Amino acid sequence: MPVSSPSLLQQIQNPVTGQLDDVSQVIRQLVTADVPLLDQVGDHLMMMRGKMFRPTLTLLCSGVAAAPTERAVHLGAVVELVHLATLVHDDAVDHSLLRRGMPTVNAIFSHQVSVITGDYLYSRALMQLVNRQEHDALQILVDASTQMSVGEMWQMSAREVLDTTEAEYERVIRSKTASLIQSACRCGALLGGKEFDAPLSAFGYSLGMAFQIADDLIDYTQVAETTGKPAGLDLREHKVTLPIIAALKSMSPAARKTVNAFFSATEDHSDAEVAEIVSIVSESGGLDYARKRGEQFASEAELALKDLPNSQYKSSLISTISYVMERNS
Amino acid sequence: MPVSSPSLLQQIQNPVTGQLDDVSQVIRQLVTADVPLLDQVGDHLMMMRGKMFRPTLTLLCSGVAAAPTERAVHLGAVVELVHLATLVHDDAVDHSLLRRGMPTVNAIFSHQVSVITGDYLYSRALMQLVNRQEHDALQILVDASTQMSVGEMWQMSAREVLDTTEAEYERVIRSKTASLIQSACRCGALLGGKEFDAPLSAFGYSLGMAFQIADDLIDYTQVAETTGKPAGLDLREHKVTLPIIAALKSMSPAARKTVNAFFSATEDHSDAEVAEIVSIVSESGGLDYARKRGEQFASEAELALKDLPNSQYKSSLISTISYVMERNS
Repeated sequence: MPVSSPSLLQQIQNPVTGQLDDVSQVIRQLVTADVPLLDQVGDHLMMMRGKMFRPTLTLLCSGVAAAPTERAVHLGAVVELVHLATLVHDDAVDHSLLRRGMPTVNAIFSHQVSVITGDYLYSRALMQLVNRQEHDALQILVDASTQMSVGEMWQMSAREVLDTTEAEYERVIRSKTASLIQSACRCGALLGGKEFDAPLSAFGYSLGMAFQIADDLIDYTQVAETTGKPAGLDLREHKVTLPIIAALKSMSPAARKTVNAFFSATEDHSDAEVAEIVSIVSESGGLDYARKRGEQFASEAELALKDLPNSQYKSSLISTISYVMERNS
Repeated sequence: MPVSSPSLLQQIQNPVTGQLDDVSQVIRQLVTADVPLLDQVGDHLMMMRGKMFRPTLTLLCSGVAAAPTERAVHLGAVVELVHLATLVHDDAVDHSLLRRGMPTVNAIFSHQVSVITGDYLYSRALMQLVNRQEHDALQILVDASTQMSVGEMWQMSAREVLDTTEAEYERVIRSKTASLIQSACRCGALLGGKEFDAPLSAFGYSLGMAFQIADDLIDYTQVAETTGKPAGLDLREHKVTLPIIAALKSMSPAARKTVNAFFSATEDHSDAEVAEIVSIVSESGGLDYARKRGEQFASEAELALKDLPNSQYKSSLISTISYVMERNS
């Protein structure tokens, strides 16, 4: 039986627990402004913050060179703010009402507030980097943000979603997910010598790719109780991810016909229809293929850490790989 | 008869016509990415660009010290991109379908595309500053962007809009409009010595305040043909600006009752209802008051330029004040 995710994450965060509390405090300070509405939104965002996976990476990566400093705390806070900004805009774009089982800014306030809150969080995060003269971190995070919006654009540009290739899928998840996880690691690496950038950057990239593939698998394998969102949400929105891209290559003509009909439908799908597509994808080897691809990225992530000096931080970084692969929400 | 605005703007832009063409080219290059959808959006944005008022300010302000260089062109392009990003998000927030008589990104593409396009333009603009190591310009523009979103938040926080004070109104327009116009000037000032920052910053602030007050007046005084948007749009959206804030101070009880009823209504207003409120605001001296306040800011803008060396650039900057006060769209 795999170690259950929450306790594995706690173990991972153990070397940086104190600094993660500091990250939360810095986030709270940065979000606060002399605007009543923003304070309410801020309270909500602090709850939304979740597991602080990205600042954990920043702190652990900085620890590879030396124990995480106040500078690492600030970089971790900025990384999390950029992440929150993208979540808020994602929810605005998708008109989502729930995230991690909690109501979104969209749902509690309004769509308008979501767009502006995302803009504010992003500008505020960058202002912190400017004020602290963190020019390298600025370069890393502005580049990641540009990639994230380009990734969204690619996804929206797709016309015939079922024609999406594996290369196109990887391009989108590299931009939308891996870029920020990689940046979180690179910001941590900034605290050490230049020699840490390449391995920690490679680690972050592979971890980010594995993270998104695992996420896309969860959508096929879990139900609403554990994810806090309807199972098969991607399918219901006709979003094409690795399991179905892989499955389409070896599907029977009959199965392909069912999938085509599902993706051509304009009305909402029943749970039974979604379940049928999940079965087809599973039987055509799509889930196995995606798992294998995820494991390849996981191996690459582990390999990237190989030559780094051993420490509790490195051990925790290695454990983040299992966490990403085993988590179920 | 006042000089008609388009030809006055041409006169103003005369010393920097060549550089403004270069600004357009740089914008086009920066917006272009390997994404089909983004190229279409980019074509549309190039049309939306409008009068390039902000890059004109950057170029003219840089000219006060020495003829505008390639560096000034790049700063002007970035300022305009940040401006375009805010326009696109404003339209997304307001679900606007028209801007300057042209369909918005919202209308042509989708609300989703608007949110992401704004994010992309903003990140891309900042990336250009990071790549060119324009740390001071980064500070100026990230600060302005933060202020712009805070200004939006203040506006959305207002509960009883008719209780808005003149100080609150000025705080909002300072954040939402003056901050970027001031930043456009400050970016230009960066090209000269440190002594140019204070006067050009003060000029930009006052010009920006006058600009927004003039804009808010236009909403009361013009009709759809010249603005490309419905006359009295702010009133129809129950948006409170200086003319009505001033008018409320000296309104008869009967007029106040009509205004209260108008702002409490939940259904759309007829043209006659809007016209009635415009009359009340005019008769209560609201338009005169706003004009006078605008003229005060205009005088302050001119005063700020007083000690700068005379040149064609300074003359053009002085003319921007008349342009702002006399334009009708």
